[in-house]
Amino acid sequence: MHVQLAGRLARRGNEPLGEHCPIDVAVQAVGTRSAILLLREAYYGATRFDDFAARSGLTEATTAGRLKALVEQGVLEKLPYQEPGQRKRYEYKLTASGEALMPVVFALAQWSNEHQAAAAPIKLSHSGCDAPVTIKAECSEGHAVEMDQLIVTS
Amino acid sequence: MHVQLAGRLARRGNEPLGEHCPIDVAVQAVGTRSAILLLREAYYGATRFDDFAARSGLTEATTAGRLKALVEQGVLEKLPYQEPGQRKRYEYKLTASGEALMPVVFALAQWSNEHQAAAAPIKLSHSGCDAPVTIKAECSEGHAVEMDQLIVTS
Repeated sequence: MHVQLAGRLARRGNEPLGEHCPIDVAVQAVGTRSAILLLREAYYGATRFDDFAARSGLTEATTAGRLKALVEQGVLEKLPYQEPGQRKRYEYKLTASGEALMPVVFALAQWSNEHQAAAAPIKLSHSGCDAPVTIKAECSEGHAVEMDQLIVTS
Repeated sequence: MHVQLAGRLARRGNEPLGEHCPIDVAVQAVGTRSAILLLREAYYGATRFDDFAARSGLTEATTAGRLKALVEQGVLEKLPYQEPGQRKRYEYKLTASGEALMPVVFALAQWSNEHQAAAAPIKLSHSGCDAPVTIKAECSEGHAVEMDQLIVTS
């Protein structure tokens, strides 16, 4: 089973897609364990450096370097905050771009839930109606889209 | 904006989630550029080693090593085939597990389409009705689920 290719993609023969393929661009930007674990913690509510480091289990050096990279990529923004009597500190908040990676991160969880024995599954549900949530391909007409019904045009 | 945590996750404090988190399991299994590019080529129709190597742009050594790992992880299966007058060769086909990674790969593309200037966008559409396709979180009642409406329970 595979997708249907259209446009230049259908005529590419064996040419490599090169570095402008959006899948490649994304994996080069955020396709590392540290990026995904820090995004997970941002989705789970972390905003402060110490919380990102402790909850991700990454070293402080890795956490600092990856948070800086995620800010440079526009996935997180670094904002000053100050509590009374304390010095100014910084917190990291998701941008619209960071929030738009949510389907990537929870699609990874969904895959492990069903296909990786080493995983302790997490349950995804909708606060509005308590129904189970899946990450899936759907068209604007509301049809679930299987692999062989997906047309990819470049 | 963040998700709502329930169960043990809501009570974790600053404890790292550890290696059984399904997001971490998945990123350790397939969270490399080579794995994602070879999955892309499998979705785009490649089944033979030479095609995977040429179309991904990866070296033959990287392609060979990553295809082997994807077979070991159950994402691809390696099957013999033989054309008349030729020696026996092998092809790589997606398993159900490999097909289940489709939302991850196209959610990466969708993100770059909208948030990465370096990407040459690909268009996703539904062969049934030609409507645009998105990768999104949806509950079984048919509601689109925003980040702050997603309950994650562990």
